Amino acid sequence: MNRVRRSESDPVGSESSGPLRLLRETHEERVLSLLRARGPLTRAQLTEQTNLSRATLSSIIQTLLTKQALVEVREAAGGVARGRGRPVSVVSLNPVGGLALGIDLGQRRIQVTISNVAHEFVATGAVACVDRTPWTRRLRLALDLVDDLTTRHDLSLTALAGVGVGIVGPVSTEGSSAAGRSADRIALVRDTLRARFGVPVHVDNNTRLAALAEAVWGAGAGVDSALYLRLSYGVGGGIVLGGRLLAGAGGAAGELGHISVDRDGPACPCGGRGCLERYVSLTTLQEQCENVLDTRDDRARDLLADAGARVGEVLAAACNTVNPEVVVIGGELAETGDHLFKPLQAAFRRHTHSQVHRSVRITCAALGPDAAARGGIALVLTSSPASPNVLSAPDLEASHP
Amino acid sequence: MNRVRRSESDPVGSESSGPLRLLRETHEERVLSLLRARGPLTRAQLTEQTNLSRATLSSIIQTLLTKQALVEVREAAGGVARGRGRPVSVVSLNPVGGLALGIDLGQRRIQVTISNVAHEFVATGAVACVDRTPWTRRLRLALDLVDDLTTRHDLSLTALAGVGVGIVGPVSTEGSSAAGRSADRIALVRDTLRARFGVPVHVDNNTRLAALAEAVWGAGAGVDSALYLRLSYGVGGGIVLGGRLLAGAGGAAGELGHISVDRDGPACPCGGRGCLERYVSLTTLQEQCENVLDTRDDRARDLLADAGARVGEVLAAACNTVNPEVVVIGGELAETGDHLFKPLQAAFRRHTHSQVHRSVRITCAALGPDAAARGGIALVLTSSPASPNVLSAPDLEASHP
Repeated sequence: MNRVRRSESDPVGSESSGPLRLLRETHEERVLSLLRARGPLTRAQLTEQTNLSRATLSSIIQTLLTKQALVEVREAAGGVARGRGRPVSVVSLNPVGGLALGIDLGQRRIQVTISNVAHEFVATGAVACVDRTPWTRRLRLALDLVDDLTTRHDLSLTALAGVGVGIVGPVSTEGSSAAGRSADRIALVRDTLRARFGVPVHVDNNTRLAALAEAVWGAGAGVDSALYLRLSYGVGGGIVLGGRLLAGAGGAAGELGHISVDRDGPACPCGGRGCLERYVSLTTLQEQCENVLDTRDDRARDLLADAGARVGEVLAAACNTVNPEVVVIGGELAETGDHLFKPLQAAFRRHTHSQVHRSVRITCAALGPDAAARGGIALVLTSSPASPNVLSAPDLEASHP
Repeated sequence: MNRVRRSESDPVGSESSGPLRLLRETHEERVLSLLRARGPLTRAQLTEQTNLSRATLSSIIQTLLTKQALVEVREAAGGVARGRGRPVSVVSLNPVGGLALGIDLGQRRIQVTISNVAHEFVATGAVACVDRTPWTRRLRLALDLVDDLTTRHDLSLTALAGVGVGIVGPVSTEGSSAAGRSADRIALVRDTLRARFGVPVHVDNNTRLAALAEAVWGAGAGVDSALYLRLSYGVGGGIVLGGRLLAGAGGAAGELGHISVDRDGPACPCGGRGCLERYVSLTTLQEQCENVLDTRDDRARDLLADAGARVGEVLAAACNTVNPEVVVIGGELAETGDHLFKPLQAAFRRHTHSQVHRSVRITCAALGPDAAARGGIALVLTSSPASPNVLSAPDLEASHP
């Protein structure tokens, strides 16, 4: 288990010889995978996150810059690297290295967003649809939108790295334990897009993808653990740990909308009882007050305060369980600001362990309606071609048979 | 980003030459770290979990067997490898490679357990203490117990890999955000044991360590995600994902005893209100019925049924959040069997998303009172000398300066 540190006087083969090249490529892949997953990073961030020495990293970056796999740009303060004062230099994948496609097949809206591997968003667009639009039709709308965006922005999908798709409803990791129609829907989406683009297609629940996007580019950027809750016509959520979505054994991790707030409450189609969603979804609230999002209305403010308190209680239970660094709240209700957040924070504080509420920051989502499509892109960039762990060392099969 | 697969006709340096040796040692370290963390594995399990080819792995195992770093033993069916029918052969670290020491500084009991790096438990012992025993005294008792066990079992601690210690109360990952006295206590434990043994000392909450031990050797062995709940004089828990304890931003992940079951319930010293622990701890239940663990008693059975229902509701909230593969329930209450588990399962089912309750298995803890001490050992074996990820490739600093 000794770590061998070669001295400079050791005879080493030329860099183009086999074994050293393999090991060097292991390190290059580590740098490339990290930049792919995290976006532009400073050299200091790369040193810390690759666990390579500055000298090794510097040599690798130089090679990759020469090969035009990477580019180095000087950023103004406050940019991606969050530096203060003087501009810092960041390294990123070369934007021409490929594109990633994110699609959100939402209940009422189809969104398509395209980024390059350098985490630059190059095109986005949406079309509305009605609740019961068949899935083949939704896919057709999405594909038309892709064609429209690539034409308008003069993009070629020949170097497409992958497609990430958000759909409504629970999705298991294997896409198999989701019951009947849901599994069929996942297969349809996956097969159609794989046939069209010939690249890996990743499918997950669209609220969970919004959670991932917030953790990579939004209100949870830079933290190790984030819990996301979306308060809209439905109530859902997602958990991101170490840059990856927690799937859960049945693909249902983060289903905070189905935590019970009343043990004797009404049955929910999910199989539970007294679920949060039944009390605080926009659908329910609008039944009680059509203008519930209009905070000049007394009745609306009362309803939002009640909803905030319920949400705070559920978040307390969820945070006593996973104790994340940040809770990100999205959806239309989050846009009502303090009318929701003040009672929410009070209930949260009232029902959490002090160790938990001292360490958790609750904040509003930072991304817009393309969050789930962006999450599809994050899924592509973190999953493909493989995770950094899987890529950490190439196989030596032929070297010692 | 190409993966290079060397053909056999490629000129390769001798195995003792620098770069190939480095890469080979990377693979050896991967195998050694995995066996250290997981214990004995079959060759098939090693192939799957190291992501190396069978040929590469076979060559590496042969070298490590020759160096006596590993041993290979034929196991009867039903052993560690959980094979059925004919005996299978498993590979493990050589038991003479070193020892790991686990200490549980519990509220009423000090437990010391010693294992070797092959996951064989070689000695265990406990002494009782009273609630308010000072921490210096607890450490003295633990150290005396270590001396006693090493003498009786003729063990030498010269090749000690590390010490893992469980203490009561929350522990942040850095051991710093736990307030005042708790931080002092952690420093005392760490400094005393480091001075005595001269090896890394890992400290965590003892209920969380029991969770880790159940996930490695107990009712959660072989699953990727386990949630543990301990129902005793206190109520606590822990979450193990991918073989590692989830710490949480404030070191309080898994604090299920402080999830509220009554929003208007009494204030709890934790800062919350209506906490589960106030309703189902053995302390509380014994105030209502001294023989609450005697299931021949009508009153005891009623109390256990109520407690089971409360616990089931909290587990529903926790499982809707993380959706683990298995829930493991330990502590004295778990030993009352169906009197607790039937109402617990009913309430759990009633309050979970169907996707969650279909995928979660609820089971009784499998380990005895040394679970937390064993968890200390697991912490040593999974954290030290470094995680497999950190070890995944040696640094090439000197090779391309």
